[in-house]
Amino acid sequence: MTGWDLAPEVALRARQGSALDQVDCRATPGWSAGKVAARAHMARRGRDMATLQEMLYAHGRTGGDRAVLLVLQGMDTSGKGGVVRHVIGMVDPQGVALRAFGVPTRQEAEQHYLWRVRRALPPPGHLGVFDRSHYEDVLVARVDGLVPPSQWQGRFEEINAFEQEVAATGTVVVKVLLAISREEQAERLRRRLERPHKHWKYVPGDVDARARWDDYVLAYQDVLDRTSTPVAPWHVVPADRKWYARLAVTELVAHALEGLDLQWPVAGFDVGAELARLEATT
Amino acid sequence: MTGWDLAPEVALRARQGSALDQVDCRATPGWSAGKVAARAHMARRGRDMATLQEMLYAHGRTGGDRAVLLVLQGMDTSGKGGVVRHVIGMVDPQGVALRAFGVPTRQEAEQHYLWRVRRALPPPGHLGVFDRSHYEDVLVARVDGLVPPSQWQGRFEEINAFEQEVAATGTVVVKVLLAISREEQAERLRRRLERPHKHWKYVPGDVDARARWDDYVLAYQDVLDRTSTPVAPWHVVPADRKWYARLAVTELVAHALEGLDLQWPVAGFDVGAELARLEATT
Repeated sequence: MTGWDLAPEVALRARQGSALDQVDCRATPGWSAGKVAARAHMARRGRDMATLQEMLYAHGRTGGDRAVLLVLQGMDTSGKGGVVRHVIGMVDPQGVALRAFGVPTRQEAEQHYLWRVRRALPPPGHLGVFDRSHYEDVLVARVDGLVPPSQWQGRFEEINAFEQEVAATGTVVVKVLLAISREEQAERLRRRLERPHKHWKYVPGDVDARARWDDYVLAYQDVLDRTSTPVAPWHVVPADRKWYARLAVTELVAHALEGLDLQWPVAGFDVGAELARLEATT
Repeated sequence: MTGWDLAPEVALRARQGSALDQVDCRATPGWSAGKVAARAHMARRGRDMATLQEMLYAHGRTGGDRAVLLVLQGMDTSGKGGVVRHVIGMVDPQGVALRAFGVPTRQEAEQHYLWRVRRALPPPGHLGVFDRSHYEDVLVARVDGLVPPSQWQGRFEEINAFEQEVAATGTVVVKVLLAISREEQAERLRRRLERPHKHWKYVPGDVDARARWDDYVLAYQDVLDRTSTPVAPWHVVPADRKWYARLAVTELVAHALEGLDLQWPVAGFDVGAELARLEATT
């Protein structure tokens, strides 16, 4: 059985002092078995993940308070949507709480930036997924100058406190930065533009953001340096190869679910008595 | 290529005067090719459904107002959860708006019974799924005597008006009653009780509801007779064979999506100009 040489929760964990602009986005850290083996492994771990998630759901339905929250960040075209579809798509939709964060609505903009995030936290027993997140409030908000530096600078500590609070309520936070190279992004944007049925995914703003690539790298570097905490560490997932990114996120989520160390809930009723009651109705 | 002898939107559509207690729940109306062929066909239609749903999502993202709402009803163990997992699980979770309706919360109970339903309607571009629905307000509410007859009797017309209004906003309503036999329910409840990892799905109330089987059949019959409208017809899906029920619902949803007659959205920008802007950044 092929598998990971080094578990991605170790291999990909953001480390103090590691430079985002030095990441090889075509690399496959911890995985040397290639793409074909990856497909089989991902399917198998997907089944594990689905069972574990059903167990989490059962736990939530019987009064448990645990949950898992996957936070997905990355430049445009880095594959966040593909991860949702191909990784999260492997588990029962009933147990998933997915939220995509776009430009704040007027109502949201009138509130504290964490207001809409709190409302989107996964209920007990759920696998929550944030497609973009509160990190946009220290990324696009900073790069586009939507708020003054004095304001976004204070947010790092605020975010750490928020995530600590989330973790304290029983939710395991798994943060993933999908890292693509500037060249790969050009290629993916070009493909979107060349295929009419992909045009809906393209917005001219994507090229504008791309023109500020270095500013984004700097902003992401600060995110990694300042918000990778023991309770909610970042994982930098090289994402030029989609198969690797999806394999790695599958493993990170499955690992987080395993870490909850859940059991199937014990019946809160007398099984024998219920069987007898059932027989009486047949 | 094997396929349907008769399309399920025709074969399964509730007809005035047809009696629910005469339905053969082991039958496979419109499908004579058996279980193995069903699996292959469902996978293929699942891919169609996924593409159509992406097109619907694209439509919603570019200002379109169409949506599809699948309403799932059925006795306990009839397979509503399995349909969510195996049918809805075939499409991108991003475009799905799933809501399971349980006993109303205190807040919900203080409002009109349609209040929580309106809030759960799928946004434009989404495939909404109701696992149970406002029909519980003329089913359990009636059978358990939660409200007086004068009250639930008025709800049929109210529900028809509500669904007409939903349809008028661009949402296609697909209503499915998963019909299992009393014998099959006993078998499924027995299996839940005999398997410890299924205990969390069992609540003693299931046997109590089962003891009122005939009352439920009567209540469902009224639902079919009084709320199967041209704009939101009911489909009675025999569900003793899970593979058939899932195949049929896949087809009903795919057919509803096809009926929207969507196209990939046309670019709202100048493709050539964007390609040039992109090249300027590489």
